[in-house]
Amino acid sequence: MTALVFLDPDFSAGRIADDTAAQLSVLDQGVTRGDGIFESALYTRQVVRKLDAHLARLRVSAQVCDLRIPDEGAWRAAIETAVAEFDAATPCAEAVVKLVATRGSDETGVGTSWVMVSPAPELGRKQREAGVSVLLLDRGYDSTVAERAPWLLMGAKTLSYAVNMAALRHARKQGAEDVIFISSDGIVLEGPTSTVLLAHRDGDTKRLITPTLETGILPGTTQGAIFAAAKEAGWELGYGPLVPEHLMDAEGVWLVSSVRLLTPVNSLDGTPIARDAELHEELTAMVNAIE
Amino acid sequence: MTALVFLDPDFSAGRIADDTAAQLSVLDQGVTRGDGIFESALYTRQVVRKLDAHLARLRVSAQVCDLRIPDEGAWRAAIETAVAEFDAATPCAEAVVKLVATRGSDETGVGTSWVMVSPAPELGRKQREAGVSVLLLDRGYDSTVAERAPWLLMGAKTLSYAVNMAALRHARKQGAEDVIFISSDGIVLEGPTSTVLLAHRDGDTKRLITPTLETGILPGTTQGAIFAAAKEAGWELGYGPLVPEHLMDAEGVWLVSSVRLLTPVNSLDGTPIARDAELHEELTAMVNAIE
Repeated sequence: MTALVFLDPDFSAGRIADDTAAQLSVLDQGVTRGDGIFESALYTRQVVRKLDAHLARLRVSAQVCDLRIPDEGAWRAAIETAVAEFDAATPCAEAVVKLVATRGSDETGVGTSWVMVSPAPELGRKQREAGVSVLLLDRGYDSTVAERAPWLLMGAKTLSYAVNMAALRHARKQGAEDVIFISSDGIVLEGPTSTVLLAHRDGDTKRLITPTLETGILPGTTQGAIFAAAKEAGWELGYGPLVPEHLMDAEGVWLVSSVRLLTPVNSLDGTPIARDAELHEELTAMVNAIE
Repeated sequence: MTALVFLDPDFSAGRIADDTAAQLSVLDQGVTRGDGIFESALYTRQVVRKLDAHLARLRVSAQVCDLRIPDEGAWRAAIETAVAEFDAATPCAEAVVKLVATRGSDETGVGTSWVMVSPAPELGRKQREAGVSVLLLDRGYDSTVAERAPWLLMGAKTLSYAVNMAALRHARKQGAEDVIFISSDGIVLEGPTSTVLLAHRDGDTKRLITPTLETGILPGTTQGAIFAAAKEAGWELGYGPLVPEHLMDAEGVWLVSSVRLLTPVNSLDGTPIARDAELHEELTAMVNAIE
């Protein structure tokens, strides 16, 4: 069951809608042009995790895309209504709260915004336990493109995800489960739906590293929360540029995302990589403590 | 008025729907992931122009995206129903026939396909007469990416058009009207919604040139039809690689597309370029004769 609530000026707590009925116009530029933005948050133990960070990133995506979206209060109210609806119908341990805002139909100029809550996919929970085999795939862009070409919308989480989905399908056809994109100049970027982390251990020193945002990747809300927790715990933090050899040489590599959380990488292009159990356990505890 | 017809196995001529009502699920991956494909054809003088070429390119887009779409007969039947509906309600000189096929919602695995017919935008007709000022913008990809990275879906006309729309908004903010994308290695690619043509005159010889498809651009159905007509008329034909200097040095540069047809480029990055009136007239006659 999916709980669906539209943001609507006439309904201060959002307008509850039937997710099994048609709700969108075929003229909406969300579908005709993939012209809109989204966020996916985890709803667990009665809390939408990192909601502030998701709303902040939604706002940045809207700015990058010149999109007018409802104010934060309207989003919070609609989210509250949607999780209450969801809990009443389908209480479950982990759910996805998806926020979507499109440019609406050409004719009205008014955007369409909604909140959906649905059970978290089973696959994500399995991969969190078992880890994933990863293919390194060229993203086509070089690592300096974001700065010189803002019209490429790097750093915005848009609805135009066809390439991300195609990369995942390509990986599955090759027998792999996920993807890490590499820039055309050989720099590690991100997964199609995740941020890359790697860790090193050097005596008592533990170091957590993620690609630099200057590469044009999406700022990961989960990466941000883990980094804050790791800093508290005395880890050293580092930011790329990273190359694939850094991934091969790490004590552990993970794909992190809001819903799937911390997923260990088992292999890169078929070559097994290190999985330090203690580092994994410590990071998992940090992820589970995110609010 | 928009005529809307869904492709539906239960309706051999397509299922007529009300375009002013909601018709799509918020779970459709066409909107949640920009995961689908489309075509835009011109309907004028009772003919959907280049329908075979549009259906062929739709098929290629579907293959590139691993998308199962209805067979050609179902598309033709739905198009016939949609244009009849449109003519009955809003006869007009030029209309757009849009074909869309999405991956559908996650849960069903069944795609959603429809045909829309609506009046052609007034702006396109104006620009066809007056020409457009064009900004050259970096597309981020190098010109060899298509061959090495099929997961980037180069050559497929997907619904993930957010970058194309952002490039047009960027150009308008700079006071320009359209865009020609340049690869990161300096090769002329295409417009966000058009193919680039340039022409030269050398004594009695006329030469028509377009960027090579090896750059990963979309094969233009209008470019294809013009090239066929120009060959008949004794023109020489050429295929890039082209660099911006080739555009500056041409006797004429045009953006061509199915609906806007042949739009002359007046300037590139603010610098006026040649507009050979005779070449333009001859090409316009060819475009108007396309069936």
